[in-house]
Amino acid sequence: MTAISPTPAGEGKTTTSVGLGDALNALGKNVAICLREPSLGPCFGMKGGAAGGGFAQIIPMEEINLHFTGDFHAISAAHNLLSAMIDNHIYWGNGLNLDARRISWRRVVDMNDRALRDIVTSLGGVANGFPRQSGYDISVASEIMAILCLATNLKDLENRIEKIVVGQDKDRNNITAGQLNAAGAMAVLLRDAIKPNLVQSMEHTPAFVHGGPFANIAHGCNSLVATKTALKLADYVVTEAGFGADLGAEKFFDIKCRIGELTPSATVLVATIKALKFQGGADGKSLGEVNMDALDKGLENLGQHISNLEKFGVPVIVGINKYSNDTDEEIQAVEKYCSARNVNAHACTHWADGGKGALSLAQDIVETIEADRSEFSPLYGDDLALVEKVRHVARTIYGADDIVCDKKVLTQFKTFQEQGYGNLPVCMAKTQYSFSTDPSAKGAPKNHIVPVREVRLAAGAGFIVAICGDIMTMPGLPRHPAAEKIGIDANGETVGLF
Amino acid sequence: MTAISPTPAGEGKTTTSVGLGDALNALGKNVAICLREPSLGPCFGMKGGAAGGGFAQIIPMEEINLHFTGDFHAISAAHNLLSAMIDNHIYWGNGLNLDARRISWRRVVDMNDRALRDIVTSLGGVANGFPRQSGYDISVASEIMAILCLATNLKDLENRIEKIVVGQDKDRNNITAGQLNAAGAMAVLLRDAIKPNLVQSMEHTPAFVHGGPFANIAHGCNSLVATKTALKLADYVVTEAGFGADLGAEKFFDIKCRIGELTPSATVLVATIKALKFQGGADGKSLGEVNMDALDKGLENLGQHISNLEKFGVPVIVGINKYSNDTDEEIQAVEKYCSARNVNAHACTHWADGGKGALSLAQDIVETIEADRSEFSPLYGDDLALVEKVRHVARTIYGADDIVCDKKVLTQFKTFQEQGYGNLPVCMAKTQYSFSTDPSAKGAPKNHIVPVREVRLAAGAGFIVAICGDIMTMPGLPRHPAAEKIGIDANGETVGLF
Amino acid sequence: MTAISPTPAGEGKTTTSVGLGDALNALGKNVAICLREPSLGPCFGMKGGAAGGGFAQIIPMEEINLHFTGDFHAISAAHNLLSAMIDNHIYWGNGLNLDARRISWRRVVDMNDRALRDIVTSLGGVANGFPRQSGYDISVASEIMAILCLATNLKDLENRIEKIVVGQDKDRNNITAGQLNAAGAMAVLLRDAIKPNLVQSMEHTPAFVHGGPFANIAHGCNSLVATKTALKLADYVVTEAGFGADLGAEKFFDIKCRIGELTPSATVLVATIKALKFQGGADGKSLGEVNMDALDKGLENLGQHISNLEKFGVPVIVGINKYSNDTDEEIQAVEKYCSARNVNAHACTHWADGGKGALSLAQDIVETIEADRSEFSPLYGDDLALVEKVRHVARTIYGADDIVCDKKVLTQFKTFQEQGYGNLPVCMAKTQYSFSTDPSAKGAPKNHIVPVREVRLAAGAGFIVAICGDIMTMPGLPRHPAAEKIGIDANGETVGLF
Amino acid sequence: MTAISPTPAGEGKTTTSVGLGDALNALGKNVAICLREPSLGPCFGMKGGAAGGGFAQIIPMEEINLHFTGDFHAISAAHNLLSAMIDNHIYWGNGLNLDARRISWRRVVDMNDRALRDIVTSLGGVANGFPRQSGYDISVASEIMAILCLATNLKDLENRIEKIVVGQDKDRNNITAGQLNAAGAMAVLLRDAIKPNLVQSMEHTPAFVHGGPFANIAHGCNSLVATKTALKLADYVVTEAGFGADLGAEKFFDIKCRIGELTPSATVLVATIKALKFQGGADGKSLGEVNMDALDKGLENLGQHISNLEKFGVPVIVGINKYSNDTDEEIQAVEKYCSARNVNAHACTHWADGGKGALSLAQDIVETIEADRSEFSPLYGDDLALVEKVRHVARTIYGADDIVCDKKVLTQFKTFQEQGYGNLPVCMAKTQYSFSTDPSAKGAPKNHIVPVREVRLAAGAGFIVAICGDIMTMPGLPRHPAAEKIGIDANGETVGLF
Repeated sequence: MTAISPTPAGEGKTTTSVGLGDALNALGKNVAICLREPSLGPCFGMKGGAAGGGFAQIIPMEEINLHFTGDFHAISAAHNLLSAMIDNHIYWGNGLNLDARRISWRRVVDMNDRALRDIVTSLGGVANGFPRQSGYDISVASEIMAILCLATNLKDLENRIEKIVVGQDKDRNNITAGQLNAAGAMAVLLRDAIKPNLVQSMEHTPAFVHGGPFANIAHGCNSLVATKTALKLADYVVTEAGFGADLGAEKFFDIKCRIGELTPSATVLVATIKALKFQGGADGKSLGEVNMDALDKGLENLGQHISNLEKFGVPVIVGINKYSNDTDEEIQAVEKYCSARNVNAHACTHWADGGKGALSLAQDIVETIEADRSEFSPLYGDDLALVEKVRHVARTIYGADDIVCDKKVLTQFKTFQEQGYGNLPVCMAKTQYSFSTDPSAKGAPKNHIVPVREVRLAAGAGFIVAICGDIMTMPGLPRHPAAEKIGIDANGETVGLF
Repeated sequence: MTAISPTPAGEGKTTTSVGLGDALNALGKNVAICLREPSLGPCFGMKGGAAGGGFAQIIPMEEINLHFTGDFHAISAAHNLLSAMIDNHIYWGNGLNLDARRISWRRVVDMNDRALRDIVTSLGGVANGFPRQSGYDISVASEIMAILCLATNLKDLENRIEKIVVGQDKDRNNITAGQLNAAGAMAVLLRDAIKPNLVQSMEHTPAFVHGGPFANIAHGCNSLVATKTALKLADYVVTEAGFGADLGAEKFFDIKCRIGELTPSATVLVATIKALKFQGGADGKSLGEVNMDALDKGLENLGQHISNLEKFGVPVIVGINKYSNDTDEEIQAVEKYCSARNVNAHACTHWADGGKGALSLAQDIVETIEADRSEFSPLYGDDLALVEKVRHVARTIYGADDIVCDKKVLTQFKTFQEQGYGNLPVCMAKTQYSFSTDPSAKGAPKNHIVPVREVRLAAGAGFIVAICGDIMTMPGLPRHPAAEKIGIDANGETVGLF
Repeated sequence: MTAISPTPAGEGKTTTSVGLGDALNALGKNVAICLREPSLGPCFGMKGGAAGGGFAQIIPMEEINLHFTGDFHAISAAHNLLSAMIDNHIYWGNGLNLDARRISWRRVVDMNDRALRDIVTSLGGVANGFPRQSGYDISVASEIMAILCLATNLKDLENRIEKIVVGQDKDRNNITAGQLNAAGAMAVLLRDAIKPNLVQSMEHTPAFVHGGPFANIAHGCNSLVATKTALKLADYVVTEAGFGADLGAEKFFDIKCRIGELTPSATVLVATIKALKFQGGADGKSLGEVNMDALDKGLENLGQHISNLEKFGVPVIVGINKYSNDTDEEIQAVEKYCSARNVNAHACTHWADGGKGALSLAQDIVETIEADRSEFSPLYGDDLALVEKVRHVARTIYGADDIVCDKKVLTQFKTFQEQGYGNLPVCMAKTQYSFSTDPSAKGAPKNHIVPVREVRLAAGAGFIVAICGDIMTMPGLPRHPAAEKIGIDANGETVGLF
Repeated sequence: MTAISPTPAGEGKTTTSVGLGDALNALGKNVAICLREPSLGPCFGMKGGAAGGGFAQIIPMEEINLHFTGDFHAISAAHNLLSAMIDNHIYWGNGLNLDARRISWRRVVDMNDRALRDIVTSLGGVANGFPRQSGYDISVASEIMAILCLATNLKDLENRIEKIVVGQDKDRNNITAGQLNAAGAMAVLLRDAIKPNLVQSMEHTPAFVHGGPFANIAHGCNSLVATKTALKLADYVVTEAGFGADLGAEKFFDIKCRIGELTPSATVLVATIKALKFQGGADGKSLGEVNMDALDKGLENLGQHISNLEKFGVPVIVGINKYSNDTDEEIQAVEKYCSARNVNAHACTHWADGGKGALSLAQDIVETIEADRSEFSPLYGDDLALVEKVRHVARTIYGADDIVCDKKVLTQFKTFQEQGYGNLPVCMAKTQYSFSTDPSAKGAPKNHIVPVREVRLAAGAGFIVAICGDIMTMPGLPRHPAAEKIGIDANGETVGLF
């Protein structure tokens, strides 16, 4: 399950995943849904939770949105234990000769807290250690989260943790979590977290809600362990990937499927009439109004996503996540556009109607899968040079003319290549609002250039992050955070969290 | 259950609580044990876990010592949500006119991380807010922890959170969590955490393991909710208080019993032969050797604790937590000393023998309670002035001649008094290694002066903290943290955590 | 006096200025030299002083290189008084509602001290004020320095100081030094510093050594007061401008001459054989060797500087600052190249021979000036939009195709325009090693793009700084600073400073 | 020239020194005055300048109060060069293994700038070095200033600079400026500054105005070089020492005279009626009113200063710095009190009348010196242990019962003793407003205890600083700094500086 380029409100991938699961269930299929766990911090910020919506929802919503089974707390604890051990190592003589200025391992908290983005630690004198400039990311942006979602078992998890590069020593050699003897204790902290969590939809379809790596600097998919468990238990597994298909689907295919040796059978591309109008240039505030011109122009965005997805060899079906005020004319315009591209489109009403609102989509999925038309392969081979992988994605998926990297970035690519990381896939970090790096370039922009500002090594997760544009790894709270309205009412019920 | 002044290794209050509970159970009594939850951070530092030991242990040890039911994670999250909302409030215009230099609410993490004691936040420019100097405490030192342990229910918890003073505005008025509209969301985060956790000892005695406020800047006791639940369900409830009796028992009586309207029936004062020798001046490394002179001198410490406890009107029984190499001569010396003071002493071997090792202690407890000799009252009345409460504790319990406060501290006392906090009890923060503020002053030092360095308001918890000496609210890791040895073995078992 | 694109060692503009002055003197002309004061800090770093060299030197060298008449100390004091008054204003209630994050006025010190580039101030509690992230520049980079060099008298100096924009208030309005009532006291601190300093060359030619604004973020010329004084007293005034002609001469013409209403009569463009070979691609270490290919290629750099200078309407003469090991073949190649462009070139040996080494250059200058061929006009008019001024300089002088600015920079240009600063000249900050922004692009690079990273307002100095590339406003010391060798010998003489 | 315990406005030591000098001059004596140079920073704060007042003033006041001959700028530059070299040394590999947390050498600026008291440096990444917490002192608090005032010549200055301890290495060995090869360059920066500056009073008495070490953490006297020069040129030399006699005179005798082998002939103890009333408990705002009770009580302060000074073996004469509204009754009360103690007192009117207002004091001085009654010796011998030196001063001069030091301070004393610094004199840092460490304890407090909070080594200056109480080494500006009123008027005259 993926989507076109989204509006800030999102296009309903989770909701549609649940709806499709419920519909497959209604069709008598043995189905499981695989979703990402929501992050606690953002629940107190702009939006409420992330457990689907309407009648296409997983339950218990409140628990899932808050501490749930404690997975994210465990990830934060494991991450911060490593952070504490780094500073502690320096404090007690710095046997590994770490360069305090070149420590890239930060700290994390599952909270929207902009004040922690850039901090100085170890002030206050000798007993508090050596001052350093560092900062916090939100927990979902932790490499531990990415690792947990890509590890095949607890031992593999520990092995990956050992490989995490926390910084460099004074001779520029990489220093790892393994060298700090931190991996064992971190794995102990994660031994329950790596186990998939099983809940259900309102229509009793089983749902594995597990892992939630940040969809920009990580790969943004449900954990491999959960997906593989679901694949063993069910005949049909519906899973989602973060952001639009240029980011989420590409990473799902090129990172998760590559590492997990998965072979997806079909792709559902979610679109909403609102998002299409938005991509066609309509004003964000008037998306509820009929605007056929904007819709027509916005379909270019849908078109590029379709053609992108076809490059992976997986059949594509469009799922229109229908809102009550979408008109028939609008729906038909989308259907017609897809039809011209030989792609089926289904208007779905699972939000209002539950599984039965997505029956035609489910039926099409079943037929597509039974036809066995998927010839999946990732976009690039392991042995393409790192910088060429990035260029290839930019040209093939983003429609860019080229990438540009300054000397520092090129040197970094070269260093990673020389250090033996050349065979890793690349994890692209880019705005989700456009195929280009300019969030305001709607539709399907052409002739643009993708600047690669920075490359980072996630040696434990097993990918190289290529940062193209400003990427936020710690959100802030809005002027009036949702937290101000969240509380417990007179009946002891939680309110304000939805 | 309390203890004499401890060695750094501790005297076995938790172990003896479990042993006594198991012994009462063995006597056929309907008994429940009420313990504090261990903090996760210190498990990776010097020591292992905190779930009793030997055959006087609660299980499952590993879960209890790590994430357990997530209570501490919930406390950290609630605490840090408030922290984020403070900086966010300033960021968005500072409607409450908070003085950024006078914000006393810090952040917390359940980790030993000295690098976070003193930090500067919000660096990096306009988008990250206004720089401030602040820091982290370990989660158990959070006022939220103290509140959770003193709240009578979820609504009371929320009410107390509302009253938390986070700092002052530019006119020096206190600003509360309630004014920031944070209390509801914080309570939602804590709605499961406030529920007591029920486990059992190895001999199947029920144990409520719930809450773990820092025994120096907070009151160091199991939660009131857990204790009250246990009192409803069992005829005998065994509970503990942190540190030695000068701190733990005094706060149990003066804070927890006062706020919770509890009337304890008997006190067990735990002593070890080692600790007595240590208090008598023996070298920390030779405590295993017989040294009757040191023992005799160390008994003065026991004596002062006995006489202190009697001031609360509760019968005192001494429990000797016997080690295998303690000699009969040593044990008898203690018994004789106690006998001369009209106090029973029982050598207990629960660590090696489980409940049956503490039967004579249990029997004595039963008889004492049936004799109904307790005439409990706290040490001071609510209406004594705050500074006089501190002076009274120092003179009565610590054997001090007086306290000294500089002008700033006296002004602070006066301000709290004027702001209507004069009726709160005082929570003393002092070294646990001596009755005085000098950790090396062993035995029962006389003619000493207690300097009060700082006073802090815990308006939500409902006490005034009086800091006497250097108090650590964020520990560090040792040169070789336990974390380096913790891991998962070939069978998938956790090792290194005990 | 200006130069081609320099090597890191510099091309000898100051030395040639002194040599030309002495030669004019030797010809019996009434001449004065106008030079910049050297900065104290860099004397302790890589190089020694900056008072010319060999027999073309001003004296007393030691005093000129160190404290001299205290001008730079006065500038530092005036600058830092304003800094202190800003933080003091915030401390005492912030009546002007300054946004502490938007204060652009930093502090200065005349020292190479990289540790001060990025600092946090006001730590340590309430009494020390509100923490802010800020930093130090070297004193020559102070706007006060630029103002002192452009002010026409003490009153004008004070008026310009009043206009300095120190930051914005919370509604984004500019706040000035005048609003802080700082200008009067700052002017008092500068009342002696604004007076030109008169010294002499070794051949007794009078030299006004006064002012030394940083040639990148400021205009890099001797003070207007000194130049005008010299123009009143002498018939011929020789003055210099920092860096190569693309920066120094352009700013001399477009900023200093514009503001001071000066009309220069002739330009000497200094070149060295070494620098030409360097611009032609020769290795920095083998510049002493004959390399006619590199020399030929390097002449393109000279050619572009010549054609640039001609755009200002001022006659150009090339002065070859000859080194003892330059060959006749090399010198002739330069002469031939110039001759083909209708420009005279003179090989000068003033370093070795004093004024008589520059007689032919001097003679040519006299004839040129007497021919009165100068038709000076600046490159652009006051009323061209700011962004267009930058574009015009980039295209006309740098040979760039265009400039690129991100949205933030464009907005800033627009804001300055709206605030009424649109008529100011632009002060370009760019590497001196290339016409482009890539220091390694030697010769006369074509088809390059100039990125404008940042624009800053120097409202007191009266220009807009356009920063193109990484600009250093606080240098660091090298691994072995010159300071390690500087000292006082047994005879009480200063050694190591040259 | 010294004084009783002052009011915040000061008692007029400088004015009386000038008055006495002028009076001696009027008596036909060959006299020179030796004063401290005023600091630039404070001129912009609360007060104006410090060049005497009324008709007892040195000129040119404006120059003396501002940059003067640049001595303080040179001191700041030399100090900050060492600071830069320390961070630079760490940056380039830290060959000396400096512990960045144990660097005690800070930076200085001659400005009242509280924002710089506590800062973090080297933020912003690898190129800016390793972050450290440090800060700025005002330049007069620099050890360089103390050194300049105690050095006997330029070579001795350099030798002393070499011995400056800047911090410790990771094995806790002291690291010196000499090890950083900084001393030579620092001496070069100071080669003019060490030369005494000669000005004159309004009555043409020569005055050496040179050096101005902070009277709390340094010794607060005119430079030894200036004093010795004056002693060679004149028969009578009048010099002053900072703060009251408990601090200034004690340090003059025990530090300056000891190191410089000076033997003072007589002491003038300045008192004002206002200060005596202030010391007698009168309110600071009503000091202008007659209050014989307060005056009588305040005379105890005078009495203790007299008896203190007699302990050094130097004859004492009281000089009453008379204000126009002092009554005869008040003056006579002081005279009577002194007479009873066998000490002469002279009411002086030099502020209003110049030298002739101090003739009787001058006459008495001449007679006293001719009688040759001085038997000067310092208060303690070199070989008394450091801690005992401090105790001796506290008991003998401050009238304290004892000193108290915590363990850290005692250890520090011991370390200095072991490192061979035991023979140095001690430089006491204490409030000037009381003999005790409580600024509000007026008169001659008895039975007080002096807490020694910190000891610092000034190995270059050649003393150990014992800090007793809160000591400010960087002042702040007041709400309305004098700078706001300082400026240049229409005639080009400086106004607001007096």
